[in-house]
Amino acid sequence: MIINFKAYGEAAGRRALDIAKAAERVARELGVNIAVAPGHLELALVAQSVEIPVYAQGADAESPGARTAHVAVDNVKEAGASGLILNHSEAPLRLNDLAGLIARARGVGLDVVACAPDPRTSLAAAALGPHAVAVEPPELIGTGRAVSRYKPEAIVETVELVRRHFPEVAVITGAGIESGEDVDAALRLGTKGVLLASAAVKAKDHYAKILELAKPLAGR
Amino acid sequence: MIINFKAYGEAAGRRALDIAKAAERVARELGVNIAVAPGHLELALVAQSVEIPVYAQGADAESPGARTAHVAVDNVKEAGASGLILNHSEAPLRLNDLAGLIARARGVGLDVVACAPDPRTSLAAAALGPHAVAVEPPELIGTGRAVSRYKPEAIVETVELVRRHFPEVAVITGAGIESGEDVDAALRLGTKGVLLASAAVKAKDHYAKILELAKPLAGR
Amino acid sequence: MIINFKAYGEAAGRRALDIAKAAERVARELGVNIAVAPGHLELALVAQSVEIPVYAQGADAESPGARTAHVAVDNVKEAGASGLILNHSEAPLRLNDLAGLIARARGVGLDVVACAPDPRTSLAAAALGPHAVAVEPPELIGTGRAVSRYKPEAIVETVELVRRHFPEVAVITGAGIESGEDVDAALRLGTKGVLLASAAVKAKDHYAKILELAKPLAGR
Amino acid sequence: MIINFKAYGEAAGRRALDIAKAAERVARELGVNIAVAPGHLELALVAQSVEIPVYAQGADAESPGARTAHVAVDNVKEAGASGLILNHSEAPLRLNDLAGLIARARGVGLDVVACAPDPRTSLAAAALGPHAVAVEPPELIGTGRAVSRYKPEAIVETVELVRRHFPEVAVITGAGIESGEDVDAALRLGTKGVLLASAAVKAKDHYAKILELAKPLAGR
Repeated sequence: MIINFKAYGEAAGRRALDIAKAAERVARELGVNIAVAPGHLELALVAQSVEIPVYAQGADAESPGARTAHVAVDNVKEAGASGLILNHSEAPLRLNDLAGLIARARGVGLDVVACAPDPRTSLAAAALGPHAVAVEPPELIGTGRAVSRYKPEAIVETVELVRRHFPEVAVITGAGIESGEDVDAALRLGTKGVLLASAAVKAKDHYAKILELAKPLAGR
Repeated sequence: MIINFKAYGEAAGRRALDIAKAAERVARELGVNIAVAPGHLELALVAQSVEIPVYAQGADAESPGARTAHVAVDNVKEAGASGLILNHSEAPLRLNDLAGLIARARGVGLDVVACAPDPRTSLAAAALGPHAVAVEPPELIGTGRAVSRYKPEAIVETVELVRRHFPEVAVITGAGIESGEDVDAALRLGTKGVLLASAAVKAKDHYAKILELAKPLAGR
Repeated sequence: MIINFKAYGEAAGRRALDIAKAAERVARELGVNIAVAPGHLELALVAQSVEIPVYAQGADAESPGARTAHVAVDNVKEAGASGLILNHSEAPLRLNDLAGLIARARGVGLDVVACAPDPRTSLAAAALGPHAVAVEPPELIGTGRAVSRYKPEAIVETVELVRRHFPEVAVITGAGIESGEDVDAALRLGTKGVLLASAAVKAKDHYAKILELAKPLAGR
Repeated sequence: MIINFKAYGEAAGRRALDIAKAAERVARELGVNIAVAPGHLELALVAQSVEIPVYAQGADAESPGARTAHVAVDNVKEAGASGLILNHSEAPLRLNDLAGLIARARGVGLDVVACAPDPRTSLAAAALGPHAVAVEPPELIGTGRAVSRYKPEAIVETVELVRRHFPEVAVITGAGIESGEDVDAALRLGTKGVLLASAAVKAKDHYAKILELAKPLAGR
């Protein structure tokens, strides 16, 4: 399970630490893998404060150097991240840049989750060699209507296509995950995990909500 | 004087703190204003470690919210920044976004320096109401050939145009500043300060180099 | 009056000629200036078929050369255009590119209308030296609610700001112009003309609608 | 063989017709397939003047409608094109847009050639279902050093990868094709054709040069 903090005000500044700590506690108690993906501004603080994996929400195509306001893959690694989300529908990347970023991220030892909006685009993303692809129909993101329940055929088809061509790439379910039941449905469709955001970040009780969401992952 | 750390590997991770601390020491010793602009990943750590102003190198046009990998102006403020560089030639912005970002940044109390490549574009940037414009001919950036010495007429014309139409906006010299002499030349042309990067960031002895660069500012 | 054909299917292929011919007929009958702005694909055919001015809807920042799928200013001129719309809210440009494009377009003898969403951004666009700025609040574009009637203060403020700083730049009213009354209101607010699109392009009888829209311009 | 006119001044305005007519003559004489890809501004004129296939150099992701300066796939078809080049390295597309554009172009009956810089990215492009992928190492484009001779392993690997996963997608060689020998080498490496530009467009005698380039295609 990866929790994407996006640019939510609820996860800005030191509030990012509260959510990350709640996720760490759940990961430890349930013995499940939970990663957090804070914003660029909060990444270093979160990475030095928790022991669960920390992902960056994205990176720019350029190498470190004279690139004002760019976030280079190598610098993401140096800031303490162990993984990287790429091509989220809110931060879409050019195909050629995505290819270069995946190669670069693997080169410095970052786990890469590449997002895509539908099965065929997920297949293309998988061809580039990330560790996982997250299929996220953009029309469901942030709606509370989980793709695993409202568009399960998109998941099933993605799992089937990716498994046939690139079996080394895991498939993750994104978009609209709101409850433990949504997570459970996603896992039963053959995906290895979930990428979610507002359900956890905007919860009043982060610990309780993350616990609910993560429970279906325990014991698998 | 604003020191832009760009995405230099020499300013990644905790190395950003060393440069920021050197700048802080010079600022205190000489009694001059020096601001540092670390990368997004290093911003919060630097901001909580030094007492001189910390600028972000840029921001995205969107408000806080469901914006993966975006850096919102409000979150820049929350991370501890007191200023914002916009439209650097390495991070060029759409006119309409630049207008919105300047208004938003002023709204949350950030100082704004808008960059532009030539006098007329600087005038347009000044029309949007930043605190300062930095004129940076892109062909000189990173060359070690200071605009204040190799293209002084660009500075003079910018100062003249901006003063006539928008006298409340300060003009800063960027591009190619490499030495104390370059800084001195920039000030003598009528600009209020300098925006520089590699000269300070890549120096072997950050303190010594920043001291040299800042000396012409003392006593003005 | 400039009629922007956008990428409307109603103005694709040879249908662009029908609208352009109707505009030409009205221009001749009323003795008013009407320009048409067909899509890139229809530009050359329209330019060789009518004698009223033909504008391109935009151009790319690069010079002619090895630039696949780019539309260079020089090639726009060569295709028969006499003017160029830049920075429409549906085709927003980077400040630095806009500055270069305006200079280049003037250099090859094209008239330039630069669009902007509000008074202050219009002032910035005017600083770059176009022949005219068109103020178009994006929230009104395509709504049928004319800025000249629903947000007249935006027009008034733009006219006042631009006249004070750059009196050689004309101000045009865009966004939501739907009727002759809207055009009349725009002129009474001090603007020199209007930029409109769907009202003319989607009309069943192009001639009749353009005639209605253009009448307030006659005799001024 | 596809001849990309790019935004070369040598192919602007009516000069595009000369090159297209020379290509048509060679196609007829040798009995080989040659397509021409003029700029957006010249597309309609070329399409109504020759009987060989005409490709657009690109298209924008949006549908026809209120999209100033956008070139919609449907309008490309309406302008007389029978094919579409997408993701050329000079006009790189977002992965998600490329996927949508390929689907849309196929839906309206256009042939699609998707470009990519290397074997793995070509595989990803092939996963999206174009008719062909053109592998074009950007560092060779426009150099006169043909990928088929200077980097043949990139071609061989692309052919092998695409054939294994998506055998219905043809592989085309791009980048640096300058002579008939380069074309011959490309065909011997297993590709089905070539995408070239400056060699034909900048030739003094278009007919003679295109004849030389096309000869290796005859009789296959």
